[in-house]
Amino acid sequence: MTAVQLNGRVSVARVERAWYIVCTSAELRDQPLSCMLFGKPLVAFRGDGGEPGVLVDRCPHRNVPLSLGRLTDNNLQCAYHGWQFDTGGICRKVPGLVGSAELPSRAACSHVVREQDGFVWVWADSNSQPTKEPYALPGGEGYTTVRRVVEVESTLHAAIENALDVPHTAFLHKGLFRGSGETNVVQAIMTRTADSVTTEYVGEPRPEGLAARVLSPSGGTITHFDRFLMPSVAQVDYRIGDENHILITSICTPVEDFRTRMYAVVSFNMRLPGWMIKPVLEPIAMKIFRQDREILKVQTDSIRAFDGEDYTSTELDLMGPQIWRLLKRAAEGKAPKAGDDNWRREVQLEV
Amino acid sequence: MTAVQLNGRVSVARVERAWYIVCTSAELRDQPLSCMLFGKPLVAFRGDGGEPGVLVDRCPHRNVPLSLGRLTDNNLQCAYHGWQFDTGGICRKVPGLVGSAELPSRAACSHVVREQDGFVWVWADSNSQPTKEPYALPGGEGYTTVRRVVEVESTLHAAIENALDVPHTAFLHKGLFRGSGETNVVQAIMTRTADSVTTEYVGEPRPEGLAARVLSPSGGTITHFDRFLMPSVAQVDYRIGDENHILITSICTPVEDFRTRMYAVVSFNMRLPGWMIKPVLEPIAMKIFRQDREILKVQTDSIRAFDGEDYTSTELDLMGPQIWRLLKRAAEGKAPKAGDDNWRREVQLEV
Amino acid sequence: MTAVQLNGRVSVARVERAWYIVCTSAELRDQPLSCMLFGKPLVAFRGDGGEPGVLVDRCPHRNVPLSLGRLTDNNLQCAYHGWQFDTGGICRKVPGLVGSAELPSRAACSHVVREQDGFVWVWADSNSQPTKEPYALPGGEGYTTVRRVVEVESTLHAAIENALDVPHTAFLHKGLFRGSGETNVVQAIMTRTADSVTTEYVGEPRPEGLAARVLSPSGGTITHFDRFLMPSVAQVDYRIGDENHILITSICTPVEDFRTRMYAVVSFNMRLPGWMIKPVLEPIAMKIFRQDREILKVQTDSIRAFDGEDYTSTELDLMGPQIWRLLKRAAEGKAPKAGDDNWRREVQLEV
Repeated sequence: MTAVQLNGRVSVARVERAWYIVCTSAELRDQPLSCMLFGKPLVAFRGDGGEPGVLVDRCPHRNVPLSLGRLTDNNLQCAYHGWQFDTGGICRKVPGLVGSAELPSRAACSHVVREQDGFVWVWADSNSQPTKEPYALPGGEGYTTVRRVVEVESTLHAAIENALDVPHTAFLHKGLFRGSGETNVVQAIMTRTADSVTTEYVGEPRPEGLAARVLSPSGGTITHFDRFLMPSVAQVDYRIGDENHILITSICTPVEDFRTRMYAVVSFNMRLPGWMIKPVLEPIAMKIFRQDREILKVQTDSIRAFDGEDYTSTELDLMGPQIWRLLKRAAEGKAPKAGDDNWRREVQLEV
Repeated sequence: MTAVQLNGRVSVARVERAWYIVCTSAELRDQPLSCMLFGKPLVAFRGDGGEPGVLVDRCPHRNVPLSLGRLTDNNLQCAYHGWQFDTGGICRKVPGLVGSAELPSRAACSHVVREQDGFVWVWADSNSQPTKEPYALPGGEGYTTVRRVVEVESTLHAAIENALDVPHTAFLHKGLFRGSGETNVVQAIMTRTADSVTTEYVGEPRPEGLAARVLSPSGGTITHFDRFLMPSVAQVDYRIGDENHILITSICTPVEDFRTRMYAVVSFNMRLPGWMIKPVLEPIAMKIFRQDREILKVQTDSIRAFDGEDYTSTELDLMGPQIWRLLKRAAEGKAPKAGDDNWRREVQLEV
Repeated sequence: MTAVQLNGRVSVARVERAWYIVCTSAELRDQPLSCMLFGKPLVAFRGDGGEPGVLVDRCPHRNVPLSLGRLTDNNLQCAYHGWQFDTGGICRKVPGLVGSAELPSRAACSHVVREQDGFVWVWADSNSQPTKEPYALPGGEGYTTVRRVVEVESTLHAAIENALDVPHTAFLHKGLFRGSGETNVVQAIMTRTADSVTTEYVGEPRPEGLAARVLSPSGGTITHFDRFLMPSVAQVDYRIGDENHILITSICTPVEDFRTRMYAVVSFNMRLPGWMIKPVLEPIAMKIFRQDREILKVQTDSIRAFDGEDYTSTELDLMGPQIWRLLKRAAEGKAPKAGDDNWRREVQLEV
């Protein structure tokens, strides 16, 4: 709950009326699981019939974390005095008490939960009901899917800007993806709606990096979209020729102001079979991720050392400023501005 | 001196016009001893004739801790420039100075001290004179006494509430003391005076736990009083039948807002001789203490993580709220409310 | 940049319109070097022709520390997107950008730099031009010079007061320099100008400590001046007889409010040759330094624990209060008071 207090500006926008993943379905078994959202400790557990429940992780009685307790009769039982709570947070038992335990004043604070696509999602605002459903992962026959959970020490905004930023790939990840051969001028066409930002890259040659050469040894036309879906999804949609399609969806959870967990789902359908692609692509993808994680960490350290951010952007910073615009307005509870849906911009960049 | 800054409510009440133990007599020998009270560093030492003195632990000259110095001519000598102070804080020598050293502006801040019952006590408010004497330990012929000094990471209030809380013993310490057999409905009669809270338990069966079975294999009538004596003494007074009496007195020192040292004095007079009781009871008592220390620590961590407390109490929380009432009024310098001395409440609980 | 926040008074005076050493010439080679001044991270590097440049250590683009980058074409290149900066902070290249990179809004904040006497100096105030040149080290034929860089955890003021404080040498460093024999009454004559404080000691006997006996086995007249030169130079000028002269100049850098780096230059011209003196004096000097470093650290810890300083001075605290007067006025941007240049005081002390 206690945020890092910086006097200067920081790109932290807490969009609370939204769904976020707190854990995977597989992680949540027969033990309570401690998790966190916007710096607030939460506890997830499975109650009656295996239904997931997510409560604020402190007993309303004497504030001991409920995640240190255990499951008893489908309830979560506090380790100090043994109070028991169901998945809705209702207090079902107070040991020693003569009479009923179920007073509203004894309830633990609860969140609305959905289990979908193998993830446990919560509606972040415990004071409101969901106005929509969680983001549904796109499926597809013939696609191989790989999932990874990673964590970076940065704001949600910095993590998403990095995930959708093309220029740094040619420099920070030089040789792995882009940046090893000749440069070309590419056209980027950005559009923004009330809850998304999309960039289409036109005229992009097949990258000369190792990853691209494995994907498409003979070259081919590139179709490349980068998408941001409010408030926490970054998606890279990449086709090389007709036979290679890769879709990288990073669903982000703002664990703390400067810590973001990324639930990455990579789906691909390639000329080569999945079992051949995966062992080649995975080490490259993990090396790219480690480089990004390191640079995001030193960026955060610098923001802390200087007590805030001081960014200069150029026309190459395509999506970051647009994403910030949407996040900030939503965190402030404002509706999108008139005309925002028709926004469009074209930029040239050397890739 | 720097307190943990929490925005929310916390059960911290600094009752300064009171006596607290800073060390045992045995700890204080021929070296200065660093100690702490309400987060303020203190130094204890023995001066002329072995009389204990307690000063604020910083040299008035250049603020180096006096506890890093040494004893010279019954004075405490600072390690930096060698200034010397007596037990009253008077500056007796300034090396290099031509002329007298004893100006009031050079005195170290001192506390009034008593050495009693093997403990060194200080009057916490260095700006006032004591209005009473320190708590005197009850003695008794035929009693065996064991002393232990332990420390918990919690507020004074949370430590005392825990020490005098019956319901958690049946759950957190299950099987060790209470909670292994059938439950019974017990009557608790609470009374409160201007500087004490007492609970008498009526109808309590002999606990089925290991500790109780050792004490009284044949059962017997239980007489059980829990007492709080302002501002820092928790006392459990327990009789099983005519032949077993145990008195556990925990004298607490608020070292810091979230760190409490407990000087525990256990006196007992049993059917079995003390030398047989002690080796059986001590491991059980220490296990109970370790469980309490752990739960108090996670409670404190949670209070910090949530930037304050948010407690719900039931009628089973007998003494904690009453103790807080007394502590808070005293810390605010208020006199007890009219009628407070006649306060009485009866509660039923299952034990 | 984030200062230690203490509510009480502390002897921190940030004199920004002044020169400070950020590194030695030898340290600055073909890699960027991270350094710090007044808690602000800086990066030093050598650009065109080996000229040193010092920039604020964050890329204006996305705030990653420039010191994590590398040198390319005499420019400092950021590790994230590859932006390049020259020694003046001008942005020379933005990879991917179609068009010129050199907009003023993209420049990194730069400091004016001088390389002199084997040190790299910066003018601390990046918003003003230097009004003078850095302190020039005194030279001299026949002198042996030893340089050491040490760091203490204290304010600049506490470090300089310690370096020029005579009384503690007889106590803290007892036997090493002073304090092992009889004491004598010595006359100290202090003078203060707008930017210096000087103390001359008259009537000082040859110290009985080990260091002094090595320097001058047969005794001799002592000539001893201690000097403070605004805002960061402490100098001890010591002659024993005609044949022994030692000059210890400590040029201090306020790395952070409570961390001071000292660039010590010891020049001596002795009866005995330098190669004989050095191996004897160095271990003694380092032992003295370690004792001072330890006492300065516990002094700082105490200031933090008590949330500020509370000092009492006597007439023996010759230079500290006068140095503070000059530092404080300069940090507040005030001119010296009328009559300050004529200030003079005489004090007697036992040494």
